[in-house]
Amino acid sequence: MKDLQYITNSSPSFIEGLYQDFVKDPQSVDPEFKKFFEGFDFAISQGRNGNGQPVVSKETGFKTSDGVDWKKELGAYRLILGYRNKGHLIALTNPIRPRKDRGANLDLGFFGFTEEDLDKSFFAGNLIGLGTTSLRNILSHLQKCYANHVGIEFKYISDQKKVDWLTAEMEKKFIEPLPLQKKQRILEKLNEGVMFEKFLHTKYIGQKRFSLEGGETTIPALDAIINMAAEYDVHEVVMGMAHRGRLNILANILGKTYEQIFSEFEGTAKLDQTMGSGDVKYHLGYGSELTTPSDKKVHVKLMPNPSHLEAVDPVVVGFSRAKADVMYGSDFDKILPILIHGDASVAGQGIVYEVLQMCDLDGYYTGGTIHFVINNQIGFTTDFDEARSSDYCTSLAAAMHAPVLHVNGDDPEATVKCAEIATRYRQEFNSDIFVDMVCYRRHGHNEGDDPKFTQPKLYALIDKHPNPREVYTQFLMENGESDARELAKEMEKKFWNDLQERLDEVKQKPLPYTYQQPEMWWRSLRRATPADFDQSPVTAISEAGLRNIFNAMMALPETFTPLKKIEKLLQDKQKLFQEEEKLDWSSGELLAYGSILLDGKDVRMSGQDVRRGTFSHRHAVLRDEKTDESYNRLSRIPEAKGAFRIYNSLLSEYGVLGFEYGYALANPNALVLWEAQFGDFSNGAQTIIDQFIVAGEQKWQRMAGLVLLLPHGYEGQGPEHSSARMERFLQMCAELN
Amino acid sequence: MKDLQYITNSSPSFIEGLYQDFVKDPQSVDPEFKKFFEGFDFAISQGRNGNGQPVVSKETGFKTSDGVDWKKELGAYRLILGYRNKGHLIALTNPIRPRKDRGANLDLGFFGFTEEDLDKSFFAGNLIGLGTTSLRNILSHLQKCYANHVGIEFKYISDQKKVDWLTAEMEKKFIEPLPLQKKQRILEKLNEGVMFEKFLHTKYIGQKRFSLEGGETTIPALDAIINMAAEYDVHEVVMGMAHRGRLNILANILGKTYEQIFSEFEGTAKLDQTMGSGDVKYHLGYGSELTTPSDKKVHVKLMPNPSHLEAVDPVVVGFSRAKADVMYGSDFDKILPILIHGDASVAGQGIVYEVLQMCDLDGYYTGGTIHFVINNQIGFTTDFDEARSSDYCTSLAAAMHAPVLHVNGDDPEATVKCAEIATRYRQEFNSDIFVDMVCYRRHGHNEGDDPKFTQPKLYALIDKHPNPREVYTQFLMENGESDARELAKEMEKKFWNDLQERLDEVKQKPLPYTYQQPEMWWRSLRRATPADFDQSPVTAISEAGLRNIFNAMMALPETFTPLKKIEKLLQDKQKLFQEEEKLDWSSGELLAYGSILLDGKDVRMSGQDVRRGTFSHRHAVLRDEKTDESYNRLSRIPEAKGAFRIYNSLLSEYGVLGFEYGYALANPNALVLWEAQFGDFSNGAQTIIDQFIVAGEQKWQRMAGLVLLLPHGYEGQGPEHSSARMERFLQMCAELN
Ligand SMILES: Cc1ncc(C[n+]2csc(CCOP(=O)(O)OP(=O)(O)O)c2C)c(N)n1
Ligand SMILES: Cc1ncc(C[n+]2csc(CCOP(=O)(O)OP(=O)(O)O)c2C)c(N)n1
Repeated sequence: MKDLQYITNSSPSFIEGLYQDFVKDPQSVDPEFKKFFEGFDFAISQGRNGNGQPVVSKETGFKTSDGVDWKKELGAYRLILGYRNKGHLIALTNPIRPRKDRGANLDLGFFGFTEEDLDKSFFAGNLIGLGTTSLRNILSHLQKCYANHVGIEFKYISDQKKVDWLTAEMEKKFIEPLPLQKKQRILEKLNEGVMFEKFLHTKYIGQKRFSLEGGETTIPALDAIINMAAEYDVHEVVMGMAHRGRLNILANILGKTYEQIFSEFEGTAKLDQTMGSGDVKYHLGYGSELTTPSDKKVHVKLMPNPSHLEAVDPVVVGFSRAKADVMYGSDFDKILPILIHGDASVAGQGIVYEVLQMCDLDGYYTGGTIHFVINNQIGFTTDFDEARSSDYCTSLAAAMHAPVLHVNGDDPEATVKCAEIATRYRQEFNSDIFVDMVCYRRHGHNEGDDPKFTQPKLYALIDKHPNPREVYTQFLMENGESDARELAKEMEKKFWNDLQERLDEVKQKPLPYTYQQPEMWWRSLRRATPADFDQSPVTAISEAGLRNIFNAMMALPETFTPLKKIEKLLQDKQKLFQEEEKLDWSSGELLAYGSILLDGKDVRMSGQDVRRGTFSHRHAVLRDEKTDESYNRLSRIPEAKGAFRIYNSLLSEYGVLGFEYGYALANPNALVLWEAQFGDFSNGAQTIIDQFIVAGEQKWQRMAGLVLLLPHGYEGQGPEHSSARMERFLQMCAELN
Repeated sequence: MKDLQYITNSSPSFIEGLYQDFVKDPQSVDPEFKKFFEGFDFAISQGRNGNGQPVVSKETGFKTSDGVDWKKELGAYRLILGYRNKGHLIALTNPIRPRKDRGANLDLGFFGFTEEDLDKSFFAGNLIGLGTTSLRNILSHLQKCYANHVGIEFKYISDQKKVDWLTAEMEKKFIEPLPLQKKQRILEKLNEGVMFEKFLHTKYIGQKRFSLEGGETTIPALDAIINMAAEYDVHEVVMGMAHRGRLNILANILGKTYEQIFSEFEGTAKLDQTMGSGDVKYHLGYGSELTTPSDKKVHVKLMPNPSHLEAVDPVVVGFSRAKADVMYGSDFDKILPILIHGDASVAGQGIVYEVLQMCDLDGYYTGGTIHFVINNQIGFTTDFDEARSSDYCTSLAAAMHAPVLHVNGDDPEATVKCAEIATRYRQEFNSDIFVDMVCYRRHGHNEGDDPKFTQPKLYALIDKHPNPREVYTQFLMENGESDARELAKEMEKKFWNDLQERLDEVKQKPLPYTYQQPEMWWRSLRRATPADFDQSPVTAISEAGLRNIFNAMMALPETFTPLKKIEKLLQDKQKLFQEEEKLDWSSGELLAYGSILLDGKDVRMSGQDVRRGTFSHRHAVLRDEKTDESYNRLSRIPEAKGAFRIYNSLLSEYGVLGFEYGYALANPNALVLWEAQFGDFSNGAQTIIDQFIVAGEQKWQRMAGLVLLLPHGYEGQGPEHSSARMERFLQMCAELN
């Protein structure tokens, strides 16, 4: 049974055949083999092993006459694939404690190697850009690229272009050292991030601020995303985030001054409080115009948000979409949404799934979102393994084939590189990508909270752990070029000086801010007065206008073949109008939208099945009987400058209503409508209603003209569909709401 | 650059080296290589190519002296891997129209083959259990296993045992023909499924019934799951589903009689309507005791559910968990939850993510759920590519490493096999698994709705398409053994006879039903009366009992090292009690739970951070300062028979509250509590409150004793945390609610 004569006697040349196919047509072979042979070509052109010397192996029996050991060569190739796919499972991403064993199977032995092989040379090195080199070098390179402070997850991606791009990033660009200038920027931003918390800790002892401590590397990372985005001609960045580190980001990313922040902190801010009670300090939004190190201008906004974690996600993407539509001619490369998540919330809140599921849909596309997770390994007192069943808090990304970069937050250079990769990937492929920065939380959930009650061992480790600024300074001192060491020393001094300055309350200049066009529109609106509730404004339109719209919406293009039923339906409506001067309700609805388009304003509507309408009344979009082609009945009104955009939504309420609220926030000159399938389903989006629609103006001085259509009635659809719970809305009306 | 001398001259034997490693220690090589060599062994033992003949290839140059062409051999191996990983992308799963091209790259050319290679023999055939055989046979086998009517997605699974198990299922067991007996069962069940709809269509023209037509194969599939589960000693099956096909499943899976169903349909049912208005017919639950073909008894329940799609998911798993705890000593192999999803809803509703994220958590584990998707490629009028960004409606499964079997609903044998695989997988690994049955929807969303308005082309195809029963009968007639043909003819006749019988209203016997213990407990409770609202019942406990509980909860085990702070805290509480006979609120809370345990009843509590308590007051579970070990302070009350189970939840409201509602439904003899972090967050679970908690008794005559803790107050946490919107709850109180 083990007579292998016939194998050992076989012809050696099977690899050559593959190679010749490759030479004839590189596309004909599997992409991984293609890579292998590209490496070959390179090696051969370099004199076989990259340095003109023939490869020598100490073993006998598996070598070519030139000394190539094919069995081991194949092992090296498999080692490379193994690291690409599973390196993230062993990457050193955790700054505080060892990771859980996730069965990566990446030991040398698994690929048929022993320690002795480490100094043998392998062609396979060419595959990862090293030229022919020792296994030791290959392994060390792979460890650097895939299992050091960054673990990349991308094996589930099926788009070969994305895979190739990411591979090149990790294997070639990632290991390039950062220029001194960038190191300086990182240290500066780390300084600022750490200083801010130290300041608060000193000045406002025990105050709840949800400090970023342990995760301060967020500051250089966001800074890097924005700067890189600007290089790629992004004009505007829209961010959504929760409590953790919010004040720090306001100060150090958005340039809100300490004075502004702390006057609010102390309740002395001159917010317009006439409208009500405002909100806690760590929920307010902010916008500013940043100038990047290479002198590009970017408009950056942090959206206001409620306590409800992740609720702001759909609002941010909806807002971005609206801005893209109204400011940038729907060029999604010009505006970038960033969502900052906590590890427990991104793993637990269903809204995250709903928002991800929008990423490629016509009506909700934004050209890709960058997701940045401040993964401090804990949610309040809840351990990560009580908070999720998936391996990672970001595992949802696999469902959308979005790559994830897991990175150790104690390595700010690696984190910044990941931030930059994420930004370039987003601009290149217009798809979502995740950065999962693994860090820790220095204090309790807030500063009044003792984490030792629930995580005694973890917090014994954290107590002894230096902050990321100290870690990085130390790193530069010990490993940096002399320039970098110098820099670290300088910045160390600067840190303490700056902190003292802050504590002495030296004034800071706020960043400039120029209002954008839609903001000017908002500002031109006045607030409601009691009189507004006594009388409705006049909204009548002229008869000529009405006839213009009516005729346009009843006519079909020559090339369009309607269903017989539709043809009849339109004819009946026309007859009714011409003969009796009557309109049915659905014509009235479309006419209303048409009149707004005629006023030069856009109308956007979404919701389940809204194009036809749940009750088959609307027929705003028709489909050609033969070709399935869609036709928008409000697309051809003569002289109408506004656009009618109507989309069947995915089967979500929370996500979609949040999106439309965001859309409405961005632009007062668009009528934005959301229709529930039945009114009672709107409670699935209760958080958006309660936290944003009802209270947004009161809390954040943000008006939004969103309209909700909540069909219901006693029509035999069961007790639930007979009410949209109007009493609940009425309950929330007070103080001119 | 193309001088390949050094390759062509090389020694041939690198494969041998690997093989020898394998012979020495099969575990030392990569599992895929291991398989390869297992194939080798087999081939050699069979006389090299399985039939005693040496392999002959027409090509020259890549052969061993025995004629083995290694280059091609490797190609065949890669072909196998390709089909395993990506076959699902080209599988013929769509009964109605061609699939979207998803770039599978599985053409022969991609692996270096041409048509000419089809008749050459390959050792690789051994890998898939064929012995050495022609490429044509290998390909045809792979197509049968991975690209015919079933596409399996499992490449993202990292647990090698699961991968091996699934591979064996697909490559060995799947292609085994079904015994005649099973074919008969399938036809019977298809007959029943189709007949039911025909009956309704004839008797209740135009009535809204959300017919299963196009997806009738659901009936044999569910039947197969239940029968197979019973073989694996499952005692109880708990199902959750939506509108589509519900009546059909009630009739043909749960054995609810036509009479029962239609008396409800006509509103003549003798439901206890004294409590209110009831619910629409397609929302009611049902339970029965089935006897499987091999004479096993299974208790099957379909949970009642609201219109809100997917809202029942957490309720089903919570209910299953409770039943496992109270009836089966937490042996999760005894009770199986099944969730039936629609394609649009599983892709759109965030709750699906929250429930999946529970699958491996201590507090929410149920031993795995089978997810069955009735994927009719449409949601009301919404095309699948308006309803999701992911490739599949089930792509979320990847996040939890759950396999997905995509299957063509027009092939009931394949669907039944998938159902059986899913069941055995669930019992083997106690993990979630998905069956995505691709079918179509014969009519509009409901029977009054015209689908041609929105999908004219698709419905032109559907109009011409025979139903699954006809397709299968035809298949058996054309392809079956003579026995099967006979059977098909018989069943065809039976179908029409049975239908006529039904239409003539021949009586049917309801299945037996024996109440389970917890149901008896429920039945022993009376309903609320007005008097209940005038006076609280006496719930006081004896002083001895109180002291017993107090002492137990203040004492710690010898081996436990508390934090200093905790030690002090407990001492203070004891002092307060002993010296002043006073208790603080948190001791009061624990005492209350303790008293219930002492009454022999269980207490279960979950919510975010409940073990310690959001406000650090509860400390129900302590952690050892040195070991992190947990200690439950209510676990050692002398003579208490009830168990105190308390879990920090994942960061979800909707999912977790739904789960606890399900838990509470199952067992009146447990106090089930859910605590929101702050009361205002409960609106994230508004659907559970409105549709289940508030209305469940009214709609479905189901009581549930769930208690909600909704902490809030004017404590400087911002306006939102100052109210849990009690007015909203009050609004929902009426008619003794
Ligand atoms: C929807 C919702 N549920 C519950 C809470 C209460 N809550 C506030 S912070 C927190 C833990 C957050 O953990 P994580 O997302 O990991 O962020 P971290 O605080 O650790 O940065 C919880 C449960 C909330 N804010 N929103
Ligand atoms: C939460 C929720 N939102 C909206 C609806 C309204 N609705 C009822 S059926 C349906 C489409 C369902 O599509 P799918 O899940 O594919 O199931 P199918 O009807 O095609 O079987 C919608 C949007 C609902 N029932 N529940």
